[in-house]
Amino acid sequence: MKIIIIGGVAGGASAATRARRLSEHAEILMIERGPNISFANCGMPYYLGNEIKDRSKLLVTTPHKLKERFNIDVLTSTSVEEIMPELKKVRLMNLVTGSESIETYDKLIISPGAAPFRPTLPGIDLPGIYTLRNLQDMDQIKESLTSLTKHVTVIGGGFIGLELVENLVHLGIKTTLIEYNPQVLPPFDKEMTHEILQTLKSHQVEVILNDSAKAFSETTAGLQVHLQSKNTIETSVVIMGVGVRPENKLAVAAGLNTGPRGGIQVNQFMQTSNPDIYAAGDVVETTEFVTQTPIQIPLAGPANRQGRLAADHIFGNNIAYRGSQGTAILRVFDKTAAATGLSEKTLVRMNLPYHKIYIHPSSHAGYYPGAEQMTIKLLFAPENGKVLGAQVVGGAGVDKKIDVLAIVIQAGMTVYDLEQAELAYAPQYGSAKDGINMAGFVASNLLRGEHPQIPVEDVAALVTADKVTLIDVRTPEEYSRGHIPGAMNLPVDELRARIKDLAQDKPVITYCQVGQRGYLATRIFLQHGFDVRNISGGYRTFLQVTGT
Amino acid sequence: MKIIIIGGVAGGASAATRARRLSEHAEILMIERGPNISFANCGMPYYLGNEIKDRSKLLVTTPHKLKERFNIDVLTSTSVEEIMPELKKVRLMNLVTGSESIETYDKLIISPGAAPFRPTLPGIDLPGIYTLRNLQDMDQIKESLTSLTKHVTVIGGGFIGLELVENLVHLGIKTTLIEYNPQVLPPFDKEMTHEILQTLKSHQVEVILNDSAKAFSETTAGLQVHLQSKNTIETSVVIMGVGVRPENKLAVAAGLNTGPRGGIQVNQFMQTSNPDIYAAGDVVETTEFVTQTPIQIPLAGPANRQGRLAADHIFGNNIAYRGSQGTAILRVFDKTAAATGLSEKTLVRMNLPYHKIYIHPSSHAGYYPGAEQMTIKLLFAPENGKVLGAQVVGGAGVDKKIDVLAIVIQAGMTVYDLEQAELAYAPQYGSAKDGINMAGFVASNLLRGEHPQIPVEDVAALVTADKVTLIDVRTPEEYSRGHIPGAMNLPVDELRARIKDLAQDKPVITYCQVGQRGYLATRIFLQHGFDVRNISGGYRTFLQVTGT
Repeated sequence: MKIIIIGGVAGGASAATRARRLSEHAEILMIERGPNISFANCGMPYYLGNEIKDRSKLLVTTPHKLKERFNIDVLTSTSVEEIMPELKKVRLMNLVTGSESIETYDKLIISPGAAPFRPTLPGIDLPGIYTLRNLQDMDQIKESLTSLTKHVTVIGGGFIGLELVENLVHLGIKTTLIEYNPQVLPPFDKEMTHEILQTLKSHQVEVILNDSAKAFSETTAGLQVHLQSKNTIETSVVIMGVGVRPENKLAVAAGLNTGPRGGIQVNQFMQTSNPDIYAAGDVVETTEFVTQTPIQIPLAGPANRQGRLAADHIFGNNIAYRGSQGTAILRVFDKTAAATGLSEKTLVRMNLPYHKIYIHPSSHAGYYPGAEQMTIKLLFAPENGKVLGAQVVGGAGVDKKIDVLAIVIQAGMTVYDLEQAELAYAPQYGSAKDGINMAGFVASNLLRGEHPQIPVEDVAALVTADKVTLIDVRTPEEYSRGHIPGAMNLPVDELRARIKDLAQDKPVITYCQVGQRGYLATRIFLQHGFDVRNISGGYRTFLQVTGT
Repeated sequence: MKIIIIGGVAGGASAATRARRLSEHAEILMIERGPNISFANCGMPYYLGNEIKDRSKLLVTTPHKLKERFNIDVLTSTSVEEIMPELKKVRLMNLVTGSESIETYDKLIISPGAAPFRPTLPGIDLPGIYTLRNLQDMDQIKESLTSLTKHVTVIGGGFIGLELVENLVHLGIKTTLIEYNPQVLPPFDKEMTHEILQTLKSHQVEVILNDSAKAFSETTAGLQVHLQSKNTIETSVVIMGVGVRPENKLAVAAGLNTGPRGGIQVNQFMQTSNPDIYAAGDVVETTEFVTQTPIQIPLAGPANRQGRLAADHIFGNNIAYRGSQGTAILRVFDKTAAATGLSEKTLVRMNLPYHKIYIHPSSHAGYYPGAEQMTIKLLFAPENGKVLGAQVVGGAGVDKKIDVLAIVIQAGMTVYDLEQAELAYAPQYGSAKDGINMAGFVASNLLRGEHPQIPVEDVAALVTADKVTLIDVRTPEEYSRGHIPGAMNLPVDELRARIKDLAQDKPVITYCQVGQRGYLATRIFLQHGFDVRNISGGYRTFLQVTGT
């Protein structure tokens, strides 16, 4: 058995070592176009920002180590020029010498990853305009960031873009971020990115939304970025982070099936349309876990698992890949944003029914020092309460909540399961009623009809049309510091005494700061015969949704 | 509908507020023997240690607030002297005035908690010997801890005992801990407490295991604790934390069924043997989640949920309590210990089949600064890989791992599900192959027969009897710094070259530092026809099991 693996990073490296563990006798040849294999690409922004000081830490392994420990042959600086599926051969080129050679395979695993997208804009090839994919890109960018670098422009406000921005700020470099969408972090729902946007601004990042580069030019002082809006940014360095495209050229040329966004199509065992050829990692079209529909999600965890499963299948372990949930997390200064499963915008786009709730729990018990408030958005099926997706933004503890919710989605659990979840509680780590339980309570109460809720974005039109009575049930002090337009103030603690004076001619909408007092008010109104709804997440969610 | 609730802390307070939300019209009367309701008992050790500086933070709510917001009547400093189930009445005594009164109920909820056990030892009632249950106990202990307090003895090395020890050390007080068992944290398996024991000792705590107090006496200088071992400890203050007993006297007198350990027996809706009487919290015998067998577990989270469900059932929401997993967590200085589900000792005691594996993953990607190593012990069913229990000990990230594993157990997931878990990865928060995935890989490989493993405690006898060849596959440097007795050294990277020289007359046992190189060595041996097993968790687990 001879296995050739194209690509030596996440998916390729996992496939190679798994294959060796499954078979001492196979011949395994890994071919990597770059000079390095198995490097920690997620660490590169932090090396640029000097958080990771030792470049060698990014080299997870070397060809020498792979040979010594795993008896895997590695050709670096070598590109696969052609796959010949009928002959089961690949044509290689040594990128240093230019010499070509042919290798035969029994099984081929394609895992070359995805390349940063470089739009064909005027001036895109000027010096000083970078993308960040590998250590060579990183070294070039590092070199360009001298003590003289006054300003850097990052184009693209996704994960890599924001990581770059944070690290540039750490270096003391003035940074402008340009994002085409009306929000940073496009995979998230917009309101959940509000706090991240605020954090960027509070760190003096210039954030330009709803705009994009249309051309670049050179001046004596550096570069100019010309925007669609006609504005021009004077800058020293530009780094593009506007998404990636699967490196599918070889696969397409070899006649393998690819999806509408270019990913190589594979079955659940990572087999392509040619059963002797597998593909893994960012180059494949994967399956979205919740809906089991095709999707393109470049993530390190899935890439590693897919590589592993390809090797498993080659050696007769038929372990199905279950799909990708898109679980992702990002630190932006002192904030963390994380998501798993479907977003609301995806649910809307796919025309799937959903409910959503917002809560704002503490990272741990409020009586113990250091608790930080976070926002959890939970999306679930109206029919049975099955959790469809979640987003969490805040400070401490966000990573824990998203990992729990990722497992909840994997398990197909419902909001009723969240009510009953028994999580670890000591004052440093959690609450007797954990945020996960709270999300379960709020969502289950909604499904049981005990706690009718309304998304805050639906409220303004109803208030303007005078179709509802909007009641702020917080204290007069809280109300006076800011409230939703059109709201009257009636503190929850006075509601029982004053409810008989309230007319029932119009439906009532209640809200408080985070939702809890509004819930109690809703219960009181309901039991007095009112048509009532509580604003999910309260005034805090109002501020996030309106971006104030 | 008139509901009387006995006990105003976790279970009682949750029941009361849930009842009010479900019914505006019910009469709700809460009766609490102490002067306070709804206080944060888990915070008391940290108030003693000055981590929580403001005592009022421990008061989650007050009778006044419960009345104002929830229209709940509260009688504090009032004891229930008798339950008269046939009459549906309770007899109350005002503990300040001594006056008695009778209240009728439609539904009664018993949630008085559990009382610290005070063994009837000679001298147990001497001044300076405390237990810690409520704020009054806490205030007394705080008062006793003056600048003149030279030494405190904590009896009982469970959760409360260790929390007290940590806080006493923070106050600069020399502390002795006495534990009857041969380990601290008796709910954990012993080897998982090794690191905690080391941490206690490194903070100059005198830890005495396998011993207990048999009497106390007074001297001019303070107290003496006389131990079963005949040793005597001179001390200023003694705090007892040797477990709790359900406050079942009223229930027993009222003829309600109780279990062998004294807990009030309830059905899944928290109904006692009298359908108009419910019980919730530490006073009940609950159900162990995995085995669905009766158990007594005093925990705040379950108490809160049980109180809530009792109220639900009274108002027609039939939501079943699913049982308690015993999910618990504890910080001990810079370490964290956490557990969920069944321990190995419980599995052994119940004679249930299990496999176990140990791994020692990092809290996050090793290339990013600040990663800390932890130990995960995973217990699972040989039959189908279902996760039965888990323990995690280490520094950063332990709380996250245990919450994920708690959900895994709740969902009935298997080790194969852990292999495929998609958790959040960014270098600050996790690894592309998360510790949870690693646990799944190691456990699944064991079940699939790909990675035969042996618990380290089984190795010594086999080596002594010369029945196996024990091979340390680490580097000579690692080997020379310490190895398992009887092991020869053969680095994994030399194994392929030297394997032909090794006799196959005896089974081979391999190990490395944490298990990973030993796994590769096991694969190489297996494929060369050897009978081989790898020591789960490697040399690090050996050190934990042997307590060195």
